[in-house]
Amino acid sequence: MWALRDWVAIESDSSNIQKRPELHRMMEMVAQKLRLMGGTVELVDIGEQELPDGQTITLPKVVTAQFGSDPSKHTVCVYGHVDVQPAKLEDGWATDPYNLTDINGNLYGRGTSDNKAPVLAWIHAVKAYQALSMVLPVNVKFLIEGMEETGSNGLDAMILAQRDTFLSDVDYIIISDCGWLSRRPALTYGTRGNCYFFAEVEGPKQDLHSGVYGGAVIEPMTDLIGILDTLISPSGRILIPGIQEAVAPLSDEEWKMYQDIEFDVNHFKNKTGVNHLMYNNKVDLLAHRWRYPTVSIHGIMGAFSDRGTKTVIPAKVTAKFSIRQVPDMDPATVKKQVTHYLHSVFAKRKSPNKLKVTMVIGAKPWLADTQHPLYEAGKVAIKRVFNMEPDLIREGGTIPIARTFQDVTGKSIIMMPIGGFDDGMHSQNEKMSRYNYIEGTKLFIAYLNEVAQITKTKKLKLYI
Amino acid sequence: MWALRDWVAIESDSSNIQKRPELHRMMEMVAQKLRLMGGTVELVDIGEQELPDGQTITLPKVVTAQFGSDPSKHTVCVYGHVDVQPAKLEDGWATDPYNLTDINGNLYGRGTSDNKAPVLAWIHAVKAYQALSMVLPVNVKFLIEGMEETGSNGLDAMILAQRDTFLSDVDYIIISDCGWLSRRPALTYGTRGNCYFFAEVEGPKQDLHSGVYGGAVIEPMTDLIGILDTLISPSGRILIPGIQEAVAPLSDEEWKMYQDIEFDVNHFKNKTGVNHLMYNNKVDLLAHRWRYPTVSIHGIMGAFSDRGTKTVIPAKVTAKFSIRQVPDMDPATVKKQVTHYLHSVFAKRKSPNKLKVTMVIGAKPWLADTQHPLYEAGKVAIKRVFNMEPDLIREGGTIPIARTFQDVTGKSIIMMPIGGFDDGMHSQNEKMSRYNYIEGTKLFIAYLNEVAQITKTKKLKLYI
Ligand SMILES: [Zn+2]
Ligand SMILES: [Zn+2]
Ligand SMILES: [Zn+2]
Ligand SMILES: [Zn+2]
Repeated sequence: MWALRDWVAIESDSSNIQKRPELHRMMEMVAQKLRLMGGTVELVDIGEQELPDGQTITLPKVVTAQFGSDPSKHTVCVYGHVDVQPAKLEDGWATDPYNLTDINGNLYGRGTSDNKAPVLAWIHAVKAYQALSMVLPVNVKFLIEGMEETGSNGLDAMILAQRDTFLSDVDYIIISDCGWLSRRPALTYGTRGNCYFFAEVEGPKQDLHSGVYGGAVIEPMTDLIGILDTLISPSGRILIPGIQEAVAPLSDEEWKMYQDIEFDVNHFKNKTGVNHLMYNNKVDLLAHRWRYPTVSIHGIMGAFSDRGTKTVIPAKVTAKFSIRQVPDMDPATVKKQVTHYLHSVFAKRKSPNKLKVTMVIGAKPWLADTQHPLYEAGKVAIKRVFNMEPDLIREGGTIPIARTFQDVTGKSIIMMPIGGFDDGMHSQNEKMSRYNYIEGTKLFIAYLNEVAQITKTKKLKLYI
Repeated sequence: MWALRDWVAIESDSSNIQKRPELHRMMEMVAQKLRLMGGTVELVDIGEQELPDGQTITLPKVVTAQFGSDPSKHTVCVYGHVDVQPAKLEDGWATDPYNLTDINGNLYGRGTSDNKAPVLAWIHAVKAYQALSMVLPVNVKFLIEGMEETGSNGLDAMILAQRDTFLSDVDYIIISDCGWLSRRPALTYGTRGNCYFFAEVEGPKQDLHSGVYGGAVIEPMTDLIGILDTLISPSGRILIPGIQEAVAPLSDEEWKMYQDIEFDVNHFKNKTGVNHLMYNNKVDLLAHRWRYPTVSIHGIMGAFSDRGTKTVIPAKVTAKFSIRQVPDMDPATVKKQVTHYLHSVFAKRKSPNKLKVTMVIGAKPWLADTQHPLYEAGKVAIKRVFNMEPDLIREGGTIPIARTFQDVTGKSIIMMPIGGFDDGMHSQNEKMSRYNYIEGTKLFIAYLNEVAQITKTKKLKLYI
């Protein structure tokens, strides 16, 4: 608990460049902890971050560590991050977000569940073996970064660079950067990808006064609203031709699996605070969060977005929207479909303005085989610690690093969350329960043991 | 010229509260100038401004002054403002915006044309009579404010309070806070009003992650885009039932008047930088800027509007749009029409989200009779100074103070601009030409003389 208190006390907010010294201190603290445990530790320089104004700032180093190097054993690499989302008491926190506070068995603080406690739980798992003077059943490596919350800046290049060195003998990658779906423990076998688009409509050469020019020009904002309105139906159906058609059909097996998952639709509805959800039965709701695409319009840049009543005709407006990717969608194809569709819709308007559509992120979905020995080992470990079967779940969000690990190393990946379903990652009053923290550590201890049982020569199959 | 240099040097930006001391100094400077000329001057306290954070800041005082009080003469009141729009060299100014710079006969500087030089021209006009030891042909009052650019905070109450005192003996109000349409001098006889709306769609109780919740909730942004898209057709037609129907038909007389106005459509098009305008002939273009309503969507508050790629589902989004008002529209009716229409369109979507429509500004249009003796006097004065007939023009924008003066005092108003058509009010490189400044002063001298000729008992007719 003391380590978690120390870690949470550091405001390692990677989105705020003024907190960068804190972030550097955080990485040092992680490295020092692993060094004191006798690990072979490196702080890997991953270069600099370019800021919007053209200046640069040093990225937090990535910590790599190694415990054991017995070539006859499997080697796992635990990925985690110790940077956090922003948090201020004024945002609506009941307690100081950087002062770990224990209330009724819940440990409140920014970064507890996402992702400091899970990283510490893995460290405690290794320490437990050491404390009992037992040799580790598998070699354990750590790869801990400090830029996850802002897009893992610099990590892809680092992974590529270390493919044939630090990562060369890694057999399996373990990620514990997500949460359960209910009180039942879970293994996560899929994440959605994300294609993020900018649609820019440009007209006059500068912003115009709506009194003086209103009625004289076709306003870019009107055009942009017009084309955005063709993306989604009122009920949430995607209207871009080809998108829905590419989605892998829901199999009976999958339906059955979803049906068996423990998930309280009403609790979920109440948590979001909406009157009714897009789908009111469990299977449809989970399927649309995990294995169907969605379009979200995030906002518009260049228009008036402040309080007050500015009477401007914005000259250039850029909509930001994204489409969550699922098998068998292909970002390159989605890019073509969206671009072609928006341009054809725009052409019908006969507007004098110019449209530019760009895809700025094209992250593929990730999907693992739940029958893979890594997952089988996970089920056994969960059964051992919690005395129940795990839910096999997906994440609606994107964890691009899983896909990168898979594409670069070709190794198998498992996501083994220990965060609670109500931990409030990225929200106010983030917490991790003592129960999840302690039982989670036990799970990791058990899991290392189970992974050691996987036959070394067994042929592995993974959906890519 | 020296007075203008001193005035421009003061950064009297009323939108920036950090410049408030400058603004106070500006008002003092105006008062002092008028005092030195022997006027009866007051600095009228108009109270405080409430800031968004609940704090208050003192409003700049309003300067009132009086020259002459002969009850046998007409009394005119010149309204003007000495606050300015924001300006920074980095915005793209060729010269320091607060250092009056003379280049080829143009005086560059923030606030030159809007509205410091016109105010000074009026002061010079009074001085000219004094310099020639001539008595003023009419009593001249000044009412100079310092909050025009941010909505004339406090002025309505001040005008109401002074109706039976300072304003009681005023016969005519003169406003020179606009510009010509071409190189030909102009008199302005109308402005459009403005109904400014907020349309707020609220769904989840807080912003959601689009990965985790995308596909589970009907997003407020989708709903908002959907209803905004029903306001205007791609070609710019207003789709809200009842709006177009309320517009006074264009008379043959009006058409003829527009036809005779000097206006270069191509120059206007090039200035805006668009490929083609909404209307390509002079009459339609002018008519749609001046005497037809338009809808402009200014932006959306609550959505993501920064650079970058945030994956948020905004929980509450508020569109800001406004409808320019023309005779015979009525803001109270427009409010009902818009609210009813948006709610009916929204109801068809069967969304779980909540819509709230509010009209936050309801400014009526203003229209004067161009045959009114005040305008006839203006035509004669222009003929005398420039040796040509003025264009009779309107402003597409709103000058709410005209309407307030009219509603509170019941007195007649004339707008007599001296700013050039290309002065760039509110833009970078704002200027006033020496020519307009000097000839404008002459025009005001001549105009005071012409106003003195108006028969005191003549019955006046004004369109309200
Ligand atoms: Zn995380
Ligand atoms: Zn996170
Ligand atoms: Zn002005
Ligand atoms: Zn202005």
